[in-house]
Amino acid sequence: MVKESEARLEMPVVGVIMGSTSDWDTMKKACEMLEELEVPYEAKVVSAHRTPDEMFRYAEAAVDRGIRVIIAGAGGAAHLPGMVAAKTVLPVIGVPVKSSTLNGLDSLLSIVQMPAGVPVATVAIGHAGATNAGLLAAQMLGMTDERLRARLAERRELIRQQVADTGELPR
Amino acid sequence: MVKESEARLEMPVVGVIMGSTSDWDTMKKACEMLEELEVPYEAKVVSAHRTPDEMFRYAEAAVDRGIRVIIAGAGGAAHLPGMVAAKTVLPVIGVPVKSSTLNGLDSLLSIVQMPAGVPVATVAIGHAGATNAGLLAAQMLGMTDERLRARLAERRELIRQQVADTGELPR
Amino acid sequence: MVKESEARLEMPVVGVIMGSTSDWDTMKKACEMLEELEVPYEAKVVSAHRTPDEMFRYAEAAVDRGIRVIIAGAGGAAHLPGMVAAKTVLPVIGVPVKSSTLNGLDSLLSIVQMPAGVPVATVAIGHAGATNAGLLAAQMLGMTDERLRARLAERRELIRQQVADTGELPR
Amino acid sequence: MVKESEARLEMPVVGVIMGSTSDWDTMKKACEMLEELEVPYEAKVVSAHRTPDEMFRYAEAAVDRGIRVIIAGAGGAAHLPGMVAAKTVLPVIGVPVKSSTLNGLDSLLSIVQMPAGVPVATVAIGHAGATNAGLLAAQMLGMTDERLRARLAERRELIRQQVADTGELPR
Amino acid sequence: MVKESEARLEMPVVGVIMGSTSDWDTMKKACEMLEELEVPYEAKVVSAHRTPDEMFRYAEAAVDRGIRVIIAGAGGAAHLPGMVAAKTVLPVIGVPVKSSTLNGLDSLLSIVQMPAGVPVATVAIGHAGATNAGLLAAQMLGMTDERLRARLAERRELIRQQVADTGELPR
Amino acid sequence: MVKESEARLEMPVVGVIMGSTSDWDTMKKACEMLEELEVPYEAKVVSAHRTPDEMFRYAEAAVDRGIRVIIAGAGGAAHLPGMVAAKTVLPVIGVPVKSSTLNGLDSLLSIVQMPAGVPVATVAIGHAGATNAGLLAAQMLGMTDERLRARLAERRELIRQQVADTGELPR
Amino acid sequence: MVKESEARLEMPVVGVIMGSTSDWDTMKKACEMLEELEVPYEAKVVSAHRTPDEMFRYAEAAVDRGIRVIIAGAGGAAHLPGMVAAKTVLPVIGVPVKSSTLNGLDSLLSIVQMPAGVPVATVAIGHAGATNAGLLAAQMLGMTDERLRARLAERRELIRQQVADTGELPR
Amino acid sequence: MVKESEARLEMPVVGVIMGSTSDWDTMKKACEMLEELEVPYEAKVVSAHRTPDEMFRYAEAAVDRGIRVIIAGAGGAAHLPGMVAAKTVLPVIGVPVKSSTLNGLDSLLSIVQMPAGVPVATVAIGHAGATNAGLLAAQMLGMTDERLRARLAERRELIRQQVADTGELPR
Repeated sequence: MVKESEARLEMPVVGVIMGSTSDWDTMKKACEMLEELEVPYEAKVVSAHRTPDEMFRYAEAAVDRGIRVIIAGAGGAAHLPGMVAAKTVLPVIGVPVKSSTLNGLDSLLSIVQMPAGVPVATVAIGHAGATNAGLLAAQMLGMTDERLRARLAERRELIRQQVADTGELPR
Repeated sequence: MVKESEARLEMPVVGVIMGSTSDWDTMKKACEMLEELEVPYEAKVVSAHRTPDEMFRYAEAAVDRGIRVIIAGAGGAAHLPGMVAAKTVLPVIGVPVKSSTLNGLDSLLSIVQMPAGVPVATVAIGHAGATNAGLLAAQMLGMTDERLRARLAERRELIRQQVADTGELPR
Repeated sequence: MVKESEARLEMPVVGVIMGSTSDWDTMKKACEMLEELEVPYEAKVVSAHRTPDEMFRYAEAAVDRGIRVIIAGAGGAAHLPGMVAAKTVLPVIGVPVKSSTLNGLDSLLSIVQMPAGVPVATVAIGHAGATNAGLLAAQMLGMTDERLRARLAERRELIRQQVADTGELPR
Repeated sequence: MVKESEARLEMPVVGVIMGSTSDWDTMKKACEMLEELEVPYEAKVVSAHRTPDEMFRYAEAAVDRGIRVIIAGAGGAAHLPGMVAAKTVLPVIGVPVKSSTLNGLDSLLSIVQMPAGVPVATVAIGHAGATNAGLLAAQMLGMTDERLRARLAERRELIRQQVADTGELPR
Repeated sequence: MVKESEARLEMPVVGVIMGSTSDWDTMKKACEMLEELEVPYEAKVVSAHRTPDEMFRYAEAAVDRGIRVIIAGAGGAAHLPGMVAAKTVLPVIGVPVKSSTLNGLDSLLSIVQMPAGVPVATVAIGHAGATNAGLLAAQMLGMTDERLRARLAERRELIRQQVADTGELPR
Repeated sequence: MVKESEARLEMPVVGVIMGSTSDWDTMKKACEMLEELEVPYEAKVVSAHRTPDEMFRYAEAAVDRGIRVIIAGAGGAAHLPGMVAAKTVLPVIGVPVKSSTLNGLDSLLSIVQMPAGVPVATVAIGHAGATNAGLLAAQMLGMTDERLRARLAERRELIRQQVADTGELPR
Repeated sequence: MVKESEARLEMPVVGVIMGSTSDWDTMKKACEMLEELEVPYEAKVVSAHRTPDEMFRYAEAAVDRGIRVIIAGAGGAAHLPGMVAAKTVLPVIGVPVKSSTLNGLDSLLSIVQMPAGVPVATVAIGHAGATNAGLLAAQMLGMTDERLRARLAERRELIRQQVADTGELPR
Repeated sequence: MVKESEARLEMPVVGVIMGSTSDWDTMKKACEMLEELEVPYEAKVVSAHRTPDEMFRYAEAAVDRGIRVIIAGAGGAAHLPGMVAAKTVLPVIGVPVKSSTLNGLDSLLSIVQMPAGVPVATVAIGHAGATNAGLLAAQMLGMTDERLRARLAERRELIRQQVADTGELPR
């Protein structure tokens, strides 16, 4: 018999969505971080421009499906994070995917410059941003989950140690 | 008795929408141009972030209500034009409203950098762009309306004459 | 015997022009879209700076030759779309071709920042923009052509379905 | 006698910090939003460059003092949000304050472009961003607080209604 | 009786043109410099977008009318200098007029980023640029006019002296 | 015996200088154009930062050596064109060499934004700019040299013909 | 009789120069800081473009006149700091003065993007940068002057105290 | 027996630190320059975000360890130079490492735009900047070290000679 607590753990609490399969190379960094931190998540392509109704339904249904944070990645005129944020009161993390022409400056401005009333928690452009989106989602969940917070602190201490051990560089 | 053709003329063929009443100062330039060219239009506040469902309903219903072009103005992370464009196959003209912090560069990039599949016909930032949005809508309608095209040509000739008459500037 | 209606169909209604043969790699995306949508078009090199008189003649003659929309692509100090727009009251769609030094930001600003009186319907920088220029031209023609509008709606539904079928990404 | 639950409510769960008293004009928007949503908070000047040790102590002590989210505002070479984030595993929201020379583009990039490992949840430049920082903090707290989530949903519905009631703009 | 040589001197050798009367505030700086240096000039409004044919005629006729240099000022999508340059082999100096939204960065890029084959001698944005356009035109004329070159050298020496005389600033 | 007139023709009238041998790849485009137009020139490395005194001597001596126009190319904090212009009243053409980090935007602004009093005739970033620098120098010399002007007009007509002959692009 | 040590103290060790009297409003902040720290300095207008020879003489003579650091402020195509740095091996601090058109971004890039071989120690755009230039000069002098270093440390402690005393902001 | 003066010479006077081992490719240019100039230095990875406490300890201890200048390189939201500068009154040189997405413009603004009170001596983005950081550190040390100043002057004269010997470029 499956124990309820375990089953619950398997239900995704973070929804990772992206505008296109071509964003997966970036967005998988968020998923890898969530896996490392043992945070249950789901990953889907939901496009603001190509599947607008599915996007709205996803955003509307998220809270009742147990999702607690949504990570949305998009590039260029990146409307996915902001539009999802307009349809839920769950926190939405926006990842500006690096665009081929303007290096993601367009993605960044399209995501971060939201009007008063609908925030998007924006992270850095590209891979570093996606990794941090996973971490930030975990930090939000860690606000009321001491064990997760401890895991985050341990991870950070480990990294601190690695850097501190680097020692003097070759002269 | 009202003649049917006249009544028809009164039915709006251009929908002018904007994200906020604060955009009206810019967007009224589009309306003034449509009035000058005698193109029936309607003007409404429809916000991508504050009234997302109304926005989708507006975009979906537009074609059956007789709307032939939509002009959408917004500033900052300007999602209105692109999201409306995602919900209709009518042409959508996007007006980047000048933003208080980045002078409308954010608005411009958020509107113009649409992914393949969902175009937005973007015009200049601010008042000049709004005026041109009205003109562009008329030009689109003029593709199959010789009288409107003639009106546009006359207007242009009038302006040409005015500039040509300026003569030599004071030395 | 060739039927007249068929012949007419073959007469181009969209003129695709570009400043240089080096723009063809980008601009062919517009042509491919027009072909997919069965919109008759022509494609020519017309340079604002190298063939200014030919450009003016092209713009002036377009409406009488049956052209209904002009798509103009150019890079750097991209004057072609705006100058053509100054010589016709047909709608002109401008495609900012990605430039070698400033990634097309110069092309974009040179095309989109038109003064009040002469609009250019600007799309995204590069390939996505060229594809969308073809789509936007079709949307403009679709304003009074229900069959084309239906084709556009079908195409969009097809794409929506493809994205919706993507399903969950690998965890 | 003071009831314990009430006392608890008075203990701040959001820490609003800023690099200088000159940031208060912007950052008070975050505080106003937290007050509107009845989220207990504290507001202090903590400067990365002028009081670096105090900043580190603030960040280190926050979690044990009951703080659950930190909102940090700064302008120019804005290091406060990122450095606080480096010293706590609580989520940190960064508000780019509009700078006198580069309009806050420097503040934005200094805050959002964090390396993998230390995320800052960045919002828009200036007043809108500060307001949204307050909202985002509440949304994070609302992940596990249904009543707060309901309050956020009500607030949003109210605003939706206000916009929807705007009606047609004057022609 | 007017002496022929004097009359010749009065024939303009520099043509100062601008896209709009609103550019006069900037462009008069070029004229003031030409007057100071006693270089005969003419000043006219010639608009690339509003009077394209007049612009072409102006550029074509310039050389036979005795014009030796053309100074063209324009803002935003500033096509005037480049289009005039495409229609004459006289040197064309472009002045990027400061635009209301992007501070003249759009004007600058639209003027300076000309493709190989059609140069525009671009100067700084705004008033300083216009003053320098007048100076640059005089320097070009001075290439084969020793007296003008001497006048330019005297002017420069005078300014050098003024700066050198400033002395120590108040401590 | 060498005829004097021929010898004179061999004396350089255009000085092409650049800050570093690494700029030669760009600046040779200017030289190729001068050769094509049979304009005698010289090409040297003169560095504002590494050989400041030589730069001043070059600029001071130029006019007496028969130089009539100076073309100066530099990248990054590109001071060569402006400093040479400060030491001569000959026209100076500035070529912004594409820089490795900011794509030549730094070079462009460092060259074009000169204060009132010392103009630099700035051309486009990179190879196109260098080619145009050669052309612009020839156009300046052509102001009083009808044969050179005719050569420039012929070259332009040839190019016009080539573009005009391109014909319809493959559909 | 004047004591030698005192007289020495009065000899300037920091040279504050600027391209124009209009830069004084910014550059006096550097002087105020030097006065506050009791560092002897001189302040002069020395223009790269208007007094190039004086600039070179100033830079060449500085070291023998007892100057140990040069602070140079300039705006737009700001060549003063870099050219002075090319003529001395004393450290040169560059202050990008805010320009009227591009807000000092042009000044910043013209000063900071120096090629390998000739560094300029660049500070922030505008007033804050000028203040910091004064501080930085003092810090350089403080490298071998323990009393000055102590004064700098005291000043910093004072400011730290002031910020720390601000206390909680009004809720 | 080791002579004391020699031993002293071996004690590092310049501390070269960087946020990550990936910055070494850039920062080694600073070290190579220091070696060429025989300035004793140390090179370490010290990360503002991953080892904040170690960073503070490094900055605090530097002066007593005999360090006289600190060179700090970092990319993206580059906080290392500014935070180290906040913890020492030694001069800090900041090297903006070229970032993968925004080419180091984010690094530059994060480092240079410091508020009044805490200067960072910023050099160019990338390799040239790192080389110049080494030179600038030596120039600062040379303020009171005539032999080092002589070495700097010799190096510069050597380079001047090399450039001056380049001679005419191939025509």
